Amino acid sequence: MSKDMLKEILELPKQIKEGLELAGKTKIRGEINNILICGMGGSGIAGDILKDVYTKKPVYIVKNYFIPEFIGKNTLAFIISYSGNTEETLSAYKEALKKKCRVIVITSGGKLLKLAKKKRNKIIKVPKGFVPRTALAYLFFPILKILYNSKLIKNFDEDIEDLLNILKIEEFKNKAKDLAGCLLNRVPLIYTSNKFEAVALRWKTQFNENSKVYAYYNVFSELDHNEVVPYYRRNRDFFVILIEDDEDYYKIRKRMEITKRFIARNTDTVELEVFGETPLAKIFATIHLGDLTSYYLAIKRKVNPVSTKIIEDLRRELGYPV
Amino acid sequence: MSKDMLKEILELPKQIKEGLELAGKTKIRGEINNILICGMGGSGIAGDILKDVYTKKPVYIVKNYFIPEFIGKNTLAFIISYSGNTEETLSAYKEALKKKCRVIVITSGGKLLKLAKKKRNKIIKVPKGFVPRTALAYLFFPILKILYNSKLIKNFDEDIEDLLNILKIEEFKNKAKDLAGCLLNRVPLIYTSNKFEAVALRWKTQFNENSKVYAYYNVFSELDHNEVVPYYRRNRDFFVILIEDDEDYYKIRKRMEITKRFIARNTDTVELEVFGETPLAKIFATIHLGDLTSYYLAIKRKVNPVSTKIIEDLRRELGYPV
Repeated sequence: MSKDMLKEILELPKQIKEGLELAGKTKIRGEINNILICGMGGSGIAGDILKDVYTKKPVYIVKNYFIPEFIGKNTLAFIISYSGNTEETLSAYKEALKKKCRVIVITSGGKLLKLAKKKRNKIIKVPKGFVPRTALAYLFFPILKILYNSKLIKNFDEDIEDLLNILKIEEFKNKAKDLAGCLLNRVPLIYTSNKFEAVALRWKTQFNENSKVYAYYNVFSELDHNEVVPYYRRNRDFFVILIEDDEDYYKIRKRMEITKRFIARNTDTVELEVFGETPLAKIFATIHLGDLTSYYLAIKRKVNPVSTKIIEDLRRELGYPV
Repeated sequence: MSKDMLKEILELPKQIKEGLELAGKTKIRGEINNILICGMGGSGIAGDILKDVYTKKPVYIVKNYFIPEFIGKNTLAFIISYSGNTEETLSAYKEALKKKCRVIVITSGGKLLKLAKKKRNKIIKVPKGFVPRTALAYLFFPILKILYNSKLIKNFDEDIEDLLNILKIEEFKNKAKDLAGCLLNRVPLIYTSNKFEAVALRWKTQFNENSKVYAYYNVFSELDHNEVVPYYRRNRDFFVILIEDDEDYYKIRKRMEITKRFIARNTDTVELEVFGETPLAKIFATIHLGDLTSYYLAIKRKVNPVSTKIIEDLRRELGYPV
């Protein structure tokens, strides 16, 4: 537990470049009807991000032991487990093989690496030794490169350039420290538009794991139909983080504007405009800010951002490697 | 606002029968590759339920203004808006028509009914005058019947019989009152297995709208990978409701058992076993219990379960019929 999470988070630009290189010339030939991504927690989030950036074909995210019935040989299946020992992902992997999916395994080791070698699957081997949830760029960017190599997406050099520029310029650390200060002794609630659902989910899970706090998220405009109701009363337990993009659909922007006004009457609220020009840069730069905020909130709360004791206890009781 | 929500909730068996009759002989001919369900809030939840019961083909749920790019003429699209005036659903409806989906409209009136008549779409016209979220059976059961008429699912008489029997036998009202008592001044958190995700979502939104309380949900086993972390400390603000099924996959059951032990050390927790034998009965009987619980919690909190003032204010500011 001596790992330096801050250092790992700040190495994001390096991780992005190395993540892209890890894919090399890996590609899938032939017809692909849909994409399956199997992975839990900090590995599975790569699937949520892909779903927000790749909209041409169906992307099915499986956070479970089983894969859908309709998945088959024209499915490109990414099986992602940083540790390689996640039991749900190992189970889903075996199902994907049975259904003759076009499997690509992304892992740093464990049982999954052993099995994938034996089965001669295509493997993206990511570096060992990271806190799994800070290895996100190693897990995600190879997927993007493989989709490009397989002619499923067009060149995305511009997106990467945009992202790397923002990560250089923006004052992420100071913004994150300020925000973490606001969140002390509060339950963060992250609200954003549908297209940033993966970002909101990532912020939530990073608050859970790094800061050890309860946190929840929801998206516009669905939240206007139910979750918004209790905000008619004063509430000082929650703190609402509204993640906005001036390129959101104008009706969503209008809804966010009105909803924010209602919420902010009774609940402390902060608005964050996403950075960057391209969708991919917006997603990853905003994830980066969330990662840092959750780290600084841990420090302010005097908890170890790396340790997730209950998860380790759970794994021990379930009888698999911690 | 003089509507009697309790009466409407307790009429569920009648609604189920009438909902099935509403579909009549409506069917879709020809090849169907996938199902699209467009609807927000209490209408959209019909899609979440279908996704949990119908697993043969992809079910895409759209809670948004837009539908996915890959949707086309072999898509069976259910467009659901109880009021018929939900702007997101009207927008998604127009997109579904443009993409030449096989459209079926489910509504009680409004603009959607007018447009659907003009376009000569297949229409399921549900009774007017209900609180939209208590008309769920009218919105959901026609879908099931239409899938049966279209030979996409097999006969489900047994499921309906099971469901109607449970609704007769079980002491729903007393269980709901007891549970509502536990939830006073607490934030309900609903946890269950993947296969009951729609149930958990429904409980959450009913707590929001009927009881006017914050409420959140998550599913196993994903929650074991992040949301569980903060439970190492004492917490009296939250109240965890674990919805269990003895037919859950054994590894999920084991996880739920261990996780419950960890959570219950520091947070008040109640376990609920789903009623019924068939998946459909389990889902609807458990939804019924949640509907009643949210109603009694509203009464205990001395709030009007029918009124959702912020949502109405929002609609007024957005400039559409309240």
